[in-house]
Amino acid sequence: MLTFFFASRTCALATHIALVDAGAAYELRRVDFASGEQQSPAYRAVNPKGRVPALVTPHGVLTETPALLAYLAQSFPAAGLAPLDAPFAFGEIQAFNSYLSSTVHVAHAHGPRANRWADDPAAQAAMKAKVPQSVGAAFALIEEGLLKGPFVMGTTYSIADPYLFTVARWLEGDGVDTARLPRVMAHRAMMAVRPSVLRALAEEA
Amino acid sequence: MLTFFFASRTCALATHIALVDAGAAYELRRVDFASGEQQSPAYRAVNPKGRVPALVTPHGVLTETPALLAYLAQSFPAAGLAPLDAPFAFGEIQAFNSYLSSTVHVAHAHGPRANRWADDPAAQAAMKAKVPQSVGAAFALIEEGLLKGPFVMGTTYSIADPYLFTVARWLEGDGVDTARLPRVMAHRAMMAVRPSVLRALAEEA
Repeated sequence: MLTFFFASRTCALATHIALVDAGAAYELRRVDFASGEQQSPAYRAVNPKGRVPALVTPHGVLTETPALLAYLAQSFPAAGLAPLDAPFAFGEIQAFNSYLSSTVHVAHAHGPRANRWADDPAAQAAMKAKVPQSVGAAFALIEEGLLKGPFVMGTTYSIADPYLFTVARWLEGDGVDTARLPRVMAHRAMMAVRPSVLRALAEEA
Repeated sequence: MLTFFFASRTCALATHIALVDAGAAYELRRVDFASGEQQSPAYRAVNPKGRVPALVTPHGVLTETPALLAYLAQSFPAAGLAPLDAPFAFGEIQAFNSYLSSTVHVAHAHGPRANRWADDPAAQAAMKAKVPQSVGAAFALIEEGLLKGPFVMGTTYSIADPYLFTVARWLEGDGVDTARLPRVMAHRAMMAVRPSVLRALAEEA
């Protein structure tokens, strides 16, 4: 049994979808961001970073979306969520997911979480003002080639797909012109009707 | 043969060290950041992101440090750079490296690369002012537990070690009080005399 700590409308959705895709047995624990539960001593005992997602496994706690997605692909090989005997193909997925984590999600976070990087309200407003441009530029790279189509890695679904879907749901809120991202939007629409996605979204609602 | 695109004093050092650790055959291509070569059409044909590191493999180009490190560990299993048949242990390394990439390196980058996230010079100055605090807080978590010691994952060297070493070299420049990080500093000192580290640094000089 796995225990998954998540919050709604966060990047935890990617791992949640992959848990369903993997056919894993899991129980859900919602972390209440509205009351700041992620900073509580009880939750910090699970994840000292005070963030979601976190996955309690039989061997210990894992965090960080790219690591969790790879863990699920490796732990449930029958689900075929990543090529496990091909280092380059596996590396391409990890590179894509790492880009989402360290560039795309970070660019997005300069809107709602600008206080992580500056205390001055005017500076936070300046960061928020650039989100459409920085997120837009990152998604332009995805549109122009990183997304092979129809799935991220081409014809085969992988752990890159739920992560892209999760981050792409933030585009309108980030002020990005989605009309310039037809391939990304087609991916998002395709993903939105997958049973694993529908189940994860229903469980988070 | 692998071709490794790097620039001095960047996170590319982590992968460079791991190339040596892996016993890989590689050739080096220095990207001249001073002249903006990373944005040239020739380099963008290698890596459209205009960043380093990038590794040209027989199967194609890989980017993103956590992905490159995992690729090397998987491609050169005899080097023992990561546990390859233990998803949780592999996941712990990936989680650590993902944290360095998406939180620690990002916090650091708000000094020299603040223009990525805001155009206003005053906002960039406000970001730079918070770097000691944000990098310091991330390294406090590493000091207090993520770094098991003496190596990141405990008694066994892994692909997490060259990455921590690389990022820890920026601490003084980031204005972090290293006296509060004795375990991190002991790791850095231990790494600084490893033959693979000495060779990579010499090749970058």
